[in-house]
Amino acid sequence: MTLGRNKEKKVKNIFIIGTGLIGGSFALDIKALHPDCKVFGIDTTEAHLDEALALGIIDEKADFEALHKADVVIIAIPVDATLKVLPEVLDQVSDDAIVFDAGSTKEDICAVVKSHPKRRNYLAVHPIAGTEHSGPKAAIKDLYKNKTNIICEVEVTAFKLQEKALKLFSDLGMRIRYMNPKAHDKHIAYVSHLSHISAFMLGKTVIDKERNERDIFDMAGSGFASTVRLAKSSPAMWSPIFNQNKTNVIEALDEYINNLKHFKELMEAQDFNEVFNEMEKTNYIKEILKGIQ
Amino acid sequence: MTLGRNKEKKVKNIFIIGTGLIGGSFALDIKALHPDCKVFGIDTTEAHLDEALALGIIDEKADFEALHKADVVIIAIPVDATLKVLPEVLDQVSDDAIVFDAGSTKEDICAVVKSHPKRRNYLAVHPIAGTEHSGPKAAIKDLYKNKTNIICEVEVTAFKLQEKALKLFSDLGMRIRYMNPKAHDKHIAYVSHLSHISAFMLGKTVIDKERNERDIFDMAGSGFASTVRLAKSSPAMWSPIFNQNKTNVIEALDEYINNLKHFKELMEAQDFNEVFNEMEKTNYIKEILKGIQ
Repeated sequence: MTLGRNKEKKVKNIFIIGTGLIGGSFALDIKALHPDCKVFGIDTTEAHLDEALALGIIDEKADFEALHKADVVIIAIPVDATLKVLPEVLDQVSDDAIVFDAGSTKEDICAVVKSHPKRRNYLAVHPIAGTEHSGPKAAIKDLYKNKTNIICEVEVTAFKLQEKALKLFSDLGMRIRYMNPKAHDKHIAYVSHLSHISAFMLGKTVIDKERNERDIFDMAGSGFASTVRLAKSSPAMWSPIFNQNKTNVIEALDEYINNLKHFKELMEAQDFNEVFNEMEKTNYIKEILKGIQ
Repeated sequence: MTLGRNKEKKVKNIFIIGTGLIGGSFALDIKALHPDCKVFGIDTTEAHLDEALALGIIDEKADFEALHKADVVIIAIPVDATLKVLPEVLDQVSDDAIVFDAGSTKEDICAVVKSHPKRRNYLAVHPIAGTEHSGPKAAIKDLYKNKTNIICEVEVTAFKLQEKALKLFSDLGMRIRYMNPKAHDKHIAYVSHLSHISAFMLGKTVIDKERNERDIFDMAGSGFASTVRLAKSSPAMWSPIFNQNKTNVIEALDEYINNLKHFKELMEAQDFNEVFNEMEKTNYIKEILKGIQ
């Protein structure tokens, strides 16, 4: 490794577009890793920028005109906005800048910049990390430590810029998985998007039923809290995800509804041996969940 | 308060029927509160008794013939077994013994001992506490601290025995809520039983889809883990609960399925404004979950 290459990897000017949970958490960790770097924040919500500044998440507010000086640009906004913003960011950045997003869908986002002249500056990224909270106040240190980071279409990103991004992800403690965007969107519909709908509709069912029974929620325990937790998530973030990944999510939702109906039919038929079997087979999830943090 | 009453409340011989998570956790805390007491274990699984003994959860194995010396009997077994065991326990205990169960259903259990000559020795209890684990190894200290304990038909339990049980629950750090068995079973279908089915069927949907995709579960994050956590629960415990609370659970499941279908139809109709609204309304769950541990 030459001195020149080391120099190229130095991270100086970081731009965070979307200063909420995901972008803000990247900023906090990168600032800890690179105390000399400067973090610029771009956000459509001025109050978020003020908050991010007050919390020390960003060092300075910025706008698109300043992007030419960026070494790293992280786009962490709703996925519908990413479709519009990503090409505009690529229009502005220098040849040495690495731009990545953190969106929960990859097919449409990769498609929108497929023929962009600066496509090589972009890396399609989905860090499997987050909480049900949102906004700058939700940003936390070490959010990405030991988490999986899915990278799509790595081969069309400039090699030196890949290297810069991978070094950063490695420093953040992430493990990397490579997938194509189509496979990513299909599988993530099952292991992430479906969980959110399941939690939202569980929350809705209970709220609708119990709205006039003020004391009932005293009966809710940690099991309910865990199962419904994702129903606290931001609709502004999740509605565009369901829209972009509609075909896969509807397929997953169909299978989920069919499984619930089948379970109900077993109960109606008084077939509790089979109810038992359904649950016992699914206990296998224990093995799968081992190691998920 | 007289010396006599104080003496009556002293806890000496505790019988735990079912030495798993729920019974074992009661034993651990009661032993810490009353170092002089002796905990007897009864279990149909000999290996569980050995394990409970080795873990210091119980002091001695016992059988039903020894129940006449019990001060407190805790029944923490599957709810179908409780229907059979509870009357047999009441047949054996002395007039001064308090017997309570910890089952997740209350209507059938209260009904089965309605005319039992020792009905006054029984308190119908549902502690809203637990984890997705089971067996003696799953028993933990302080499981009941700050948790809700639902008591049904308190008025038909002998006053002095109520007092003994309530003192114990208070010492364990629990808050008490009184309900009738019918209301308990109806509401618990929504805030607990439905969550379990939702989690089990989510687990099944993902396992069925991804069984041949070994690497896919690297894509699963903490959100999935949280939503599907209850699918680790014991089928031996849960199948009888769904059976006993069938009518209420089927009603809740119907409403859940209808809500999921409606969400899917909104997606199919490309009505993402309404998808957004559905989620935003459900965000109200944040307020409800405050204070649930």
